[in-house]
Amino acid sequence: MTVTDLQESECDVLIVGAGPAGLMMATWMARCGINARIVDKRSTKIFSGQADGLQSRSLEIFDSFGFADRARKEANHMLEASQNPDEEGKLRRSDRVPDAIVGLSRFTQIVLHQGRIERFFLDNIKKHSKDSLHVERAVLPESLSIDEDACDNHSKDNYPLKVQLRHLTEEEATPAQSNGPTVQDGLFRSNLADDDTDDLIAQSRANAGSTEIVRAKYMVGCDGAHSWTRRQIGFQLEGEPTDYIWGVLDIIPITDFPDIRMRCAVHSASSGSLMVIPRENKLVRLYIQLTEIKPDASGRADRSKITPDTIIKAAQKILAPYKLTYEYCDWWTAYQIGQRVGKNFDYRSRVFLAGDAVHTHSPKAGQGMNVSMQDAFNLGWKLALVVQGIAQSSILKTYQSERRRIAQDLIAFDHKFSRLFSGRPAKDVLDESGVSMAEFKDAFVKGNMFASGLSVDYGASMLVAKPGDSAAQGDGTDVSSSSTQIPGKQELAANIKLGMRFPSFQVLNQSDARPWPFQERLKSDGRFRLIVFAGNVLSPTQSARLTSFCDALTSSAFLKPHVHTHIGLLTLHSVKRTETELLRDFPEVLHPFDPKTGWDYDSVFVDDESYHQGHGEAYKNYGVDKETGCVVVTRPDQYVGFVGEVDGEGIQGVEEYFKGVFLS
Amino acid sequence: MTVTDLQESECDVLIVGAGPAGLMMATWMARCGINARIVDKRSTKIFSGQADGLQSRSLEIFDSFGFADRARKEANHMLEASQNPDEEGKLRRSDRVPDAIVGLSRFTQIVLHQGRIERFFLDNIKKHSKDSLHVERAVLPESLSIDEDACDNHSKDNYPLKVQLRHLTEEEATPAQSNGPTVQDGLFRSNLADDDTDDLIAQSRANAGSTEIVRAKYMVGCDGAHSWTRRQIGFQLEGEPTDYIWGVLDIIPITDFPDIRMRCAVHSASSGSLMVIPRENKLVRLYIQLTEIKPDASGRADRSKITPDTIIKAAQKILAPYKLTYEYCDWWTAYQIGQRVGKNFDYRSRVFLAGDAVHTHSPKAGQGMNVSMQDAFNLGWKLALVVQGIAQSSILKTYQSERRRIAQDLIAFDHKFSRLFSGRPAKDVLDESGVSMAEFKDAFVKGNMFASGLSVDYGASMLVAKPGDSAAQGDGTDVSSSSTQIPGKQELAANIKLGMRFPSFQVLNQSDARPWPFQERLKSDGRFRLIVFAGNVLSPTQSARLTSFCDALTSSAFLKPHVHTHIGLLTLHSVKRTETELLRDFPEVLHPFDPKTGWDYDSVFVDDESYHQGHGEAYKNYGVDKETGCVVVTRPDQYVGFVGEVDGEGIQGVEEYFKGVFLS
Repeated sequence: MTVTDLQESECDVLIVGAGPAGLMMATWMARCGINARIVDKRSTKIFSGQADGLQSRSLEIFDSFGFADRARKEANHMLEASQNPDEEGKLRRSDRVPDAIVGLSRFTQIVLHQGRIERFFLDNIKKHSKDSLHVERAVLPESLSIDEDACDNHSKDNYPLKVQLRHLTEEEATPAQSNGPTVQDGLFRSNLADDDTDDLIAQSRANAGSTEIVRAKYMVGCDGAHSWTRRQIGFQLEGEPTDYIWGVLDIIPITDFPDIRMRCAVHSASSGSLMVIPRENKLVRLYIQLTEIKPDASGRADRSKITPDTIIKAAQKILAPYKLTYEYCDWWTAYQIGQRVGKNFDYRSRVFLAGDAVHTHSPKAGQGMNVSMQDAFNLGWKLALVVQGIAQSSILKTYQSERRRIAQDLIAFDHKFSRLFSGRPAKDVLDESGVSMAEFKDAFVKGNMFASGLSVDYGASMLVAKPGDSAAQGDGTDVSSSSTQIPGKQELAANIKLGMRFPSFQVLNQSDARPWPFQERLKSDGRFRLIVFAGNVLSPTQSARLTSFCDALTSSAFLKPHVHTHIGLLTLHSVKRTETELLRDFPEVLHPFDPKTGWDYDSVFVDDESYHQGHGEAYKNYGVDKETGCVVVTRPDQYVGFVGEVDGEGIQGVEEYFKGVFLS
Repeated sequence: MTVTDLQESECDVLIVGAGPAGLMMATWMARCGINARIVDKRSTKIFSGQADGLQSRSLEIFDSFGFADRARKEANHMLEASQNPDEEGKLRRSDRVPDAIVGLSRFTQIVLHQGRIERFFLDNIKKHSKDSLHVERAVLPESLSIDEDACDNHSKDNYPLKVQLRHLTEEEATPAQSNGPTVQDGLFRSNLADDDTDDLIAQSRANAGSTEIVRAKYMVGCDGAHSWTRRQIGFQLEGEPTDYIWGVLDIIPITDFPDIRMRCAVHSASSGSLMVIPRENKLVRLYIQLTEIKPDASGRADRSKITPDTIIKAAQKILAPYKLTYEYCDWWTAYQIGQRVGKNFDYRSRVFLAGDAVHTHSPKAGQGMNVSMQDAFNLGWKLALVVQGIAQSSILKTYQSERRRIAQDLIAFDHKFSRLFSGRPAKDVLDESGVSMAEFKDAFVKGNMFASGLSVDYGASMLVAKPGDSAAQGDGTDVSSSSTQIPGKQELAANIKLGMRFPSFQVLNQSDARPWPFQERLKSDGRFRLIVFAGNVLSPTQSARLTSFCDALTSSAFLKPHVHTHIGLLTLHSVKRTETELLRDFPEVLHPFDPKTGWDYDSVFVDDESYHQGHGEAYKNYGVDKETGCVVVTRPDQYVGFVGEVDGEGIQGVEEYFKGVFLS
């Protein structure tokens, strides 16, 4: 058939790749009702191996979509990190530290294999899209053309991208396994393997496979380190590989090593290093330095020399005199350490790259899947709001300004950590070519804060009303706030940091006394939140301020159409629950009346003692004055955009903030 | 076709009725791999209405099967009970109390409609039975014959029950609804309606419907207040109906009544009483006294006079001057208050009755579904162990001795509570025909303890090694312990009461520092548990006691075949976690080695501080000495059977206990 006969269709957002980043993007699309498609060149999802660590912030995000509980129920919970470096020729437990920093988040780090995590995403996408959005497997793009003249026009009927999709057969889309079907390996995804995209396309063409044309408004390449999407827009990753080769085994270990159920970093004197990551269902993941495998002249190691047997032998040497064997291996792979990051995260706000497509690094810090999902979590709602005609298209520029610095931080952290970990331990303080164990521990502990995902602090932009040079954040990308934006008053809420995620403390529902982690009320539904810390609502002065704020909110011609629909309202007051009444003490806009379902009982909360779970001390923990309160705007991803007073000035700040974001 | 042509098959346990009691029974059968069938005369499960309250103990039981989390996620959580009795002709909030007693259980009361609860059971049955056990709907028994001579022989190949099952058509099995398909009502299940079983059978016979013969070892009638099973064995319920008629509405209320999201008991001066039960998805259940509807000469009210309209009008009168209307009604029903209990809970340990089939009462205390499920939770594992040839058949007698007293307590509680609630409030202390509000509150608060399900205290028997006259528990049923049974030493574990459920406090896994509610490790898998409070394992004296106890355990010819297979082992020690090592300080039987999967890392726990969730103080809370510990035997349903020392005497007590329970 000729090209003109090809089936042609339109979609708003085309997602390439259904790993964690692609699935996070699709989850946003499903949640916001966007006409999107997601394709993946492989014929099946992942069933074992690959990434496995879920950091605190990722769990908060899962919770905002409603499936953190599933992950926590199935996963192994890592509580203690134990290190066993060798300083005198033999292994000993040198230290124990909590695996997660105490008090930062209601979630601590857990470990569960990527296949289950993808399952939670797939179920959630199905639930919210009513099955209209699902992963199209064995489908990959083979050409992309961009109508350059149309890129800046973000109006509803403009589709500047034209993508030809190729449908593979089951056989074409199933990667070969190096040792048969019994034990899965991940070598075909490793950076030791070549990309097979072009081969797949060539093979399918030879077989006269079918294709179709999709016209899209936006495209997101979540297609991994070899990203086909990145190649089409001509972007490069910058950085170099190292000589360090590591193997990975998912096994049920048979061992007398005492800390096999703890996260351990083991430095042997001269046989290399190893990391222990205890997993669900008795599994343990071992990251094992393969000191005897070296890259060849091409700079890359020969992967045919690496087998489960060579990897376990390396592990046995490192762990000696402890014994280690296994009967059951669930999965294995190997990779060469290297850190690379893209200079550009998007092409003209039309084609975006997320996850491994723009930053690659070693997996040991458990960051790859987490940072990749968080890339997509940052971008998804922005694309949805622009597609829906609610937000200005300029907010799309904040994707690069916000996420590239995170990727750079990640690369720098991994660079340091990998070298410290792959290096030989110092024999003493004079051994300058060895790695100091004190330095390693320091990096390990500092790494925990970074690795929790909770230190992310987005810079000034139209989405974050804080002082600062926006250009400095985004490598020259202009994400200036609107000229009238009023900077947030950070001093009103010392621990609700502009640019950081809204933290969680326990509050009670005014109407039924149920305790909630407050962040849990900020569901990922595509809405901003206006959180009114109402303060002492029984004080006549404060009550008058609250009333005037609410009156201004409902009478603002700009804000009114957005209130409740695109800006959800949450109230937290500081008076005793039993001394206040929802219907008497709170303006109606804070708990609106619906003629079919009556009053809203789920939006007004109180900072008070619970019957069974103590007092959340939310005002104190948030750093907000119990008398006068404040107002906080959070973005759909829970990051803080604005902080102001509960008064006329505050409402002006809120209004100016949203004028910089919404179209009208 | 003739009778001899009928298809005939065998099953170990036939369950009649797939409400909460029948499903709980089926869950045990699935969990223990028993060849069972469950039939229900209705064509579909419940989708709305019916029972809705889940008490603390029911949630602990759900947790032991692995689905408490699903219930808690979907349910409304009731935290505060508020009362609004009227003492001076107008409504006022007279009191607030926590809905659940603080500190009793890690679960507080929740509310969710019966259909969802049945869904959790069905999913769990499917998961554990691999779909071999599923509810056969539109199937009901029409004849039962019992081979009296074979009843006492509980050997493997003996099937004394012969049941003819009839298969209904979809049309036959669908109950008529009084007002069409839009709003479901439960009148056809109410005690205001006649039983339709005989009509269904007659109709199916006229239509020449199909039948089959099942030969069963045991049969459990979970077939409700009109129990067909009860009729076959000629048992009666004893008790009388009252004149009080109540209506029930599940609505989304539109109201200015301030406590609509609290559990409220509202006594009006002269219009009757009302109870508010806030529910999931904005729903509220209202129990409304219908003072204008009276029973006729037959003693039963005419249900045709009762409609959602008459019920809401009664509610409006009671709640005045507050307003109450609704747009959406999910379900409604009505019933006549009465309390009745069966004298016998089983026929010759072959045919058992559970739930409404042996005790009926008013639904307002939220007890019906809970006590019914707990009947089946008590019986299921006993039947499973007898069918499997593990336990002596005499343990089946403890079903009546243990559950009939609970039913009697329930009836007495409901009798008192219903009268206090349906009566007119006293005008003052001299108004003797009115109900004193102080007396009502006292009953309400005491009722919370009873209603939590946590006060259940089973009497002495071969399953509970405590002093006491077994005959006094069971209305003459002989459930004597074996003559050699050694009474448990209650003083060694002051708060682990013989006959009561094993309470839960936080402990840490020795191997990975993860905190667990200790009860959560007592999964319902059909196994007893031997819980070794190992005490100070670093003290040479205590270590020697522990070693001698474990040596005796593994060398006991009687116990050895049961250890791990029918008796799971759990250890809790009291030394600091970081000062002990699993492989160094604990005998192997406490964490056995498996050649395929290595050491068991999930059985040894420690009473120590956690990183993120404080200190459980388990030894202190359990009332066990931190130095010398004790051993505790719990039954497969988590009730405490024996407490003894960690020494030779203790192992003798354990051995004698199990000799009274197991066959060999």
